[in-house]
Amino acid sequence: MIVLLRNSLVSRKFHTLHRSIVKMKLLTQKEAIDIDVKLFNEYKFSVDQLMELAGLSCSHAITKCYNANKKVLILCGPGNNGGDGLVCARHLAMMGYQPTIYYPKQTDNMLYKNLTHQCQRINIEFVQNAPKTEDLDKQFSVIVDALFGFSFKPPVRETFADIMNSLVNTKTPIASIDIPSGWNVEDGPENEASIKPDMLISLTAPKLCAKFFKGRYHFLGGRFVPPSLQEEYKLNLPEYPGTDTCVQL
Amino acid sequence: MIVLLRNSLVSRKFHTLHRSIVKMKLLTQKEAIDIDVKLFNEYKFSVDQLMELAGLSCSHAITKCYNANKKVLILCGPGNNGGDGLVCARHLAMMGYQPTIYYPKQTDNMLYKNLTHQCQRINIEFVQNAPKTEDLDKQFSVIVDALFGFSFKPPVRETFADIMNSLVNTKTPIASIDIPSGWNVEDGPENEASIKPDMLISLTAPKLCAKFFKGRYHFLGGRFVPPSLQEEYKLNLPEYPGTDTCVQL
Repeated sequence: MIVLLRNSLVSRKFHTLHRSIVKMKLLTQKEAIDIDVKLFNEYKFSVDQLMELAGLSCSHAITKCYNANKKVLILCGPGNNGGDGLVCARHLAMMGYQPTIYYPKQTDNMLYKNLTHQCQRINIEFVQNAPKTEDLDKQFSVIVDALFGFSFKPPVRETFADIMNSLVNTKTPIASIDIPSGWNVEDGPENEASIKPDMLISLTAPKLCAKFFKGRYHFLGGRFVPPSLQEEYKLNLPEYPGTDTCVQL
Repeated sequence: MIVLLRNSLVSRKFHTLHRSIVKMKLLTQKEAIDIDVKLFNEYKFSVDQLMELAGLSCSHAITKCYNANKKVLILCGPGNNGGDGLVCARHLAMMGYQPTIYYPKQTDNMLYKNLTHQCQRINIEFVQNAPKTEDLDKQFSVIVDALFGFSFKPPVRETFADIMNSLVNTKTPIASIDIPSGWNVEDGPENEASIKPDMLISLTAPKLCAKFFKGRYHFLGGRFVPPSLQEEYKLNLPEYPGTDTCVQL
């Protein structure tokens, strides 16, 4: 079963290689922000809707690549990237994973309070202190990095210094949602001490920093971009197979 | 591919037959309403979130059973069942189907206006008049019935008389979301002139009327019911396979 899955992932990878590298648009930070604004203002999606679909697609991508040991740490930042992480954690739990959440700077907004409550009500553990590198290495089989998204501008704030330090040094694979945290959205890793994710799940469309991604798995999630918006920005997204909410690039 | 899919559906059907018929809870109307209220008030889900997941799961169930001709008519009622239908239509369109919507009594509420707008912006056609039986027979390969849900109490209002009449007489298969429209939520078909859906997609958990369903495909969708709520109502839901958003019963 696992072999079949891997084969199919590999063949899909080659199948879409040409299209994804040669033609798929990589967004600037401004384009990513503009598209997000249009989804809400022009296409009238609610944050609740798109965050639910984005987080769900991340959970599906993760189950395709990490399914041996289901202990997952989800690191949530204060913005929408953190919200995607909370949704992802809930869906992973509903699929039999054992997520733990570290969410050090909780957003004082009803949507975020409710997303947190939903996780608490299905008994997902929230840890209060930044896990150290040795905790990451021993306790988890994958770390979901939902700290900072496409609005991020350096430097990383003090609250996140400890966890960023643990992330840089851990041997546990990191799956970054949309942007590897701490990376420049367009120019990629800031320096040698930047994180090196094993997986990148781009949402809507990959951002420019994706070209610096050297990990094993690059997925696209968030199958909700209206065709007219895809066309307006010449996104040239790959086809999502069947009913899948994500596609390997 | 189609043969494989069918075989897998059939084997899953037999696999879960014992569990689904003997043990799975069928909800009374009051229980269905209570669970819905708890999901919002106690578990703090938003309507946007659950409607998105419910509609998505309906679209996935439909693609598993009707994929030869992708012309689908979605009939949307004024309540949450109609909202599920609007979300389902949008996801079907994103998966390459050609949905048409009939939504005669549009709800004057921001969420519904936005769901309608989202469909319009991806060029889904809205028809103004109730399609006649011959239109249903000729133009569509499946009709999604999202008219009335678990809050329905007879009689059917005048606005929906024409479309209900066309539905009773059409030869095109009907896929009902949660409740076959016009049926009593607990006692099933009202009389010989009630609709006979080919597919029933129960959401959250099947309602009592599901025992009168004689069509080919019965699915459960809405993989979001927290375990503690499942336990409280002794729902005994079947396991959803892999990352699937729906499961055949």
